[in-house]
Amino acid sequence: MLEIERKFLVTTDAFKQAAFKQTRIVQGFLNTHPERTVRVRIKGDLGFLTVKGISNKAGTIRSEWETEISAEDAEQLLNLCEPGIIDKTRYEIKVGNHIFEVDEFLGENEGLIVAEVELKSEDEAFEKPSWLGKEVTGELKYYNSQLSLNPFKNWK
Amino acid sequence: MLEIERKFLVTTDAFKQAAFKQTRIVQGFLNTHPERTVRVRIKGDLGFLTVKGISNKAGTIRSEWETEISAEDAEQLLNLCEPGIIDKTRYEIKVGNHIFEVDEFLGENEGLIVAEVELKSEDEAFEKPSWLGKEVTGELKYYNSQLSLNPFKNWK
Repeated sequence: MLEIERKFLVTTDAFKQAAFKQTRIVQGFLNTHPERTVRVRIKGDLGFLTVKGISNKAGTIRSEWETEISAEDAEQLLNLCEPGIIDKTRYEIKVGNHIFEVDEFLGENEGLIVAEVELKSEDEAFEKPSWLGKEVTGELKYYNSQLSLNPFKNWK
Repeated sequence: MLEIERKFLVTTDAFKQAAFKQTRIVQGFLNTHPERTVRVRIKGDLGFLTVKGISNKAGTIRSEWETEISAEDAEQLLNLCEPGIIDKTRYEIKVGNHIFEVDEFLGENEGLIVAEVELKSEDEAFEKPSWLGKEVTGELKYYNSQLSLNPFKNWK
């Protein structure tokens, strides 16, 4: 139930040619409180309900619990979510021994591209691809729940 | 996904001798906003995650979506919930063609007993047992989510 992750900005779209998979994701939040977010997601044909807890101070470790639900149920639950639906394309890219998930946001968050890599421990080494920019692990404003409240287009 | 229900206070414990089932329920809320509550429940050996939406004006109809989860997962999710865990004993009682669910609250809500009957339509008739008191359908303060924020012992 614990997830260890580091998050980075991506400043070029060079990652796209290396992607082995590309999926559209639409998601909303029943709760955007960072201590207990509840996310409804439609990913391709599948639906998911995900609860995330508070993170450690560095933002690298966070409890996460997920269950698969039908896409139809997810559609219905999206209607109950707070305003601020997140729409993005996820690219999956193998770099060395790790998979990077790169989210290119659409809609209100267009222009933002964020990469995440899941690790087995906080200090696990991983290869950094050339398109990886500044680390933003633990910065609340890059949480999807917070992007739904305060989207990228409003940032400056 | 729509649930039609009416809710009543119960002022005596005469209902207990008519109950065919009795279950301990412990539950918490990941979100107490009345438009999108997310409830984590342990009921006997089972776990449930339930999302309820906004109700109609009378409070009789409310959207509800539920999935069964393991009791172990429910235990873990309870730790993420807002403060204000609800603890109660549920009695199920057959009255005419309907089942009444009577919740006798414990802990912070001790002294409160509430009965609910599920209906097929808003105007469906049902037999009222002698122990049924004042109707409180739609009164927000009797929602379990609100009882977790403002428990019965603080009411007067």
